[in-house]
Amino acid sequence: MAEIADEPVVPTRGDGLVRLRLELSYDGTDFAGWASQPGLRTVQDVLEQALATALRVDRPRLVVAGRNDAGVHALGQVAHCELPAGSWAAGHGRIIRQLAGLLSGDVRVRSVTEVGDDFDARFSALWRSYRYRICDRAAGVDPLRRRDTASWRRTLDVTSMRQAARALLGLHDFVAFCRRREGASTIRQLQRLEVSRHADIIEVAVRADAFCHSMVRSLVGALAAVGEGRQPVEWPADLLGLNRRSDQVTVAPARGLTLLEVGYPDAAGLAARAAEARALRTAST
Amino acid sequence: MAEIADEPVVPTRGDGLVRLRLELSYDGTDFAGWASQPGLRTVQDVLEQALATALRVDRPRLVVAGRNDAGVHALGQVAHCELPAGSWAAGHGRIIRQLAGLLSGDVRVRSVTEVGDDFDARFSALWRSYRYRICDRAAGVDPLRRRDTASWRRTLDVTSMRQAARALLGLHDFVAFCRRREGASTIRQLQRLEVSRHADIIEVAVRADAFCHSMVRSLVGALAAVGEGRQPVEWPADLLGLNRRSDQVTVAPARGLTLLEVGYPDAAGLAARAAEARALRTAST
Repeated sequence: MAEIADEPVVPTRGDGLVRLRLELSYDGTDFAGWASQPGLRTVQDVLEQALATALRVDRPRLVVAGRNDAGVHALGQVAHCELPAGSWAAGHGRIIRQLAGLLSGDVRVRSVTEVGDDFDARFSALWRSYRYRICDRAAGVDPLRRRDTASWRRTLDVTSMRQAARALLGLHDFVAFCRRREGASTIRQLQRLEVSRHADIIEVAVRADAFCHSMVRSLVGALAAVGEGRQPVEWPADLLGLNRRSDQVTVAPARGLTLLEVGYPDAAGLAARAAEARALRTAST
Repeated sequence: MAEIADEPVVPTRGDGLVRLRLELSYDGTDFAGWASQPGLRTVQDVLEQALATALRVDRPRLVVAGRNDAGVHALGQVAHCELPAGSWAAGHGRIIRQLAGLLSGDVRVRSVTEVGDDFDARFSALWRSYRYRICDRAAGVDPLRRRDTASWRRTLDVTSMRQAARALLGLHDFVAFCRRREGASTIRQLQRLEVSRHADIIEVAVRADAFCHSMVRSLVGALAAVGEGRQPVEWPADLLGLNRRSDQVTVAPARGLTLLEVGYPDAAGLAARAAEARALRTAST
């Protein structure tokens, strides 16, 4: 969509580097997640290698908005990296085509834009939105959508799932729905959690300022327990009172989860947010 | 969608057989087309074997509405077969689940319904509808839809494609767009040929009473030549005047093509159509 972006005026830097913002899509089925891991095929490794080849530079390091687990997909993932200014001279269109030629069909660089060094794909992000797709038909998932749709054995009642979802919105400690990572906050602003059904497909739309590890899939797992009638409508919201991960919450399969979009502030907001993030990072080290 | 169909009253037969109507979906990527072929993986072979296993019967023979080429997909393909009446006693829900367990993820039996012997998946069909998906973005196809979307190198002008499409509607000899098969008519009633664009995705919606071999992909190839500006808007309709296949028409890749739906008459129409088809087949042998 944003292939030909309006290029903002980017101030010249003294260090001979440019910062690039990349918009990415991938089918996570055959990847061991985003983050680089020795001996495994990860999105980060594949992209960093392709960028090095296409731009004839040392392998750059990508910083990403959402460090997805194995099997999770993306339509509008965002990353940034820094490269020698000259390497970028070939221009947007040529680089996009070169990358398309180098990468296999399950990962695509949709756009590359030069940005100022106030832009940080991870720390500048205001929100992330995800979609979770479930098929609860006995015959199984439509073969053409089986890669991004989870199959559910029991029929789900969407009305009770919706009701349960509404009670989770807002600023809460989501520790019951998170796999703990050291030092990471589990307090999140859940901005959207909507359940809809189209024939045999249930879609859960989720948006928050940020997500803890496995949070979206745990929210979906909790809602599905309500939809199956195994738990009452109030149960997911009751878990917000816990001070530890709940072992009653099932983590829904990665296959159904797709990162849709990442929201960022405008230029003035970026500068303010960068200063704030730098201060926070300094304080925490 | 039609998983739990209204079961019509089917007259008891003297021969101890039942006729079943199956609604099928498949991802054609890893199939050598519909029709059974020794040594190749075809949809017909895989389904006939699964039916034999699930119902513990000799391998039945499936008759299908659209004998798709290798790589073509289906959402609502329709087939029929005849089986010993007792084999079907387990009922719809159980058989659907058994088949889902036996089949790999790229083919699904969406519904099985008992029908009268007036129903013939191929000869009773009134129309077939297809969708063709093209992505003309330089970055390439969205990875999650790469299996059913063809990638186009040049940007397509949808306005001129639409204009060219309108001139092809109606009853014509489509021989210029067909790979000849002995004895098969190339006169077809093209009921719908619509081109639409959503961002970088162009969708061509096609419906006709029936299609000759490679006809949909040739129509799409001809429209794409207009969309690229290689041929004038009038060119596809001018080809209708030919009395042989045109070697200027490119056959668009199978990957983008999906059989969506097959239309059938109601019970009274089925009986009339079956009598007519029997008469035609007798006359032609």
